[in-house]
Amino acid sequence: MTAPVTPLLAADVIIRPQSAPDRVLLIQRRNPPHGWALPGGFVDRGERVEAAALREAREETGLEVALEALLGCYSDPARDPRGHTVSAVYVATARGEPRAGDDARDARWVDPADPGVPLAFDHALILGDYLRYRATGEVAPLRF
Amino acid sequence: MTAPVTPLLAADVIIRPQSAPDRVLLIQRRNPPHGWALPGGFVDRGERVEAAALREAREETGLEVALEALLGCYSDPARDPRGHTVSAVYVATARGEPRAGDDARDARWVDPADPGVPLAFDHALILGDYLRYRATGEVAPLRF
Repeated sequence: MTAPVTPLLAADVIIRPQSAPDRVLLIQRRNPPHGWALPGGFVDRGERVEAAALREAREETGLEVALEALLGCYSDPARDPRGHTVSAVYVATARGEPRAGDDARDARWVDPADPGVPLAFDHALILGDYLRYRATGEVAPLRF
Repeated sequence: MTAPVTPLLAADVIIRPQSAPDRVLLIQRRNPPHGWALPGGFVDRGERVEAAALREAREETGLEVALEALLGCYSDPARDPRGHTVSAVYVATARGEPRAGDDARDARWVDPADPGVPLAFDHALILGDYLRYRATGEVAPLRF
């Protein structure tokens, strides 16, 4: 069989502090596309998506996070200017304070309803879905 | 940037008839790995995951399905003997009777609690998660 060509796969994490669940963590990206984003990155072949989410959170923020739920799979072909990338986005909690690392230049707790920084990718859409999840428990709508 | 190497991405669909929601549709695979499986297949680059689920359901069963929810993302590196493939699995409903097509040799409504046929991949695990979803509304647990 010829190897199929499928979109790249990433995992991103919405991290809220256990002590202040109305905040989420954004990182300032070191590499293009620039701007602020949820911690996350590409899934390695041989790695579970959940494990990639934990690893990327650790590498970019220094936090050991606890995943709580899968918010959704984001797959708009235009969502990443580097090429079609599908992201599994998880909601997680963490204790402690972040330390920006790896591909992150800075890390900051923000109000997801008003982050106050320019967001990369479709992360504004994702934060909108997260606000709805926080209010209702409903995960991201399916999109076509 | 060197293109990252990530797992392949697939979409699979648990289809239940509107008239008999205690049944789900399995197809008999034409290609290895042989056995019975949920309708599904690889996501094309440039295609949304939801669109891939609809397309694969149509190609393999002739049914136009309505996606209802994302059950989970299945990413055990050993779940597909052809190589690491992550699958987004949706729950859907359909009207009408299936017609096996494309990569499917046959299509059959089964009781998900007792399919009576050998299942390929991790589709027995997925059907277990689906039974829990049907009973409780809870989606698949995260797995590490």
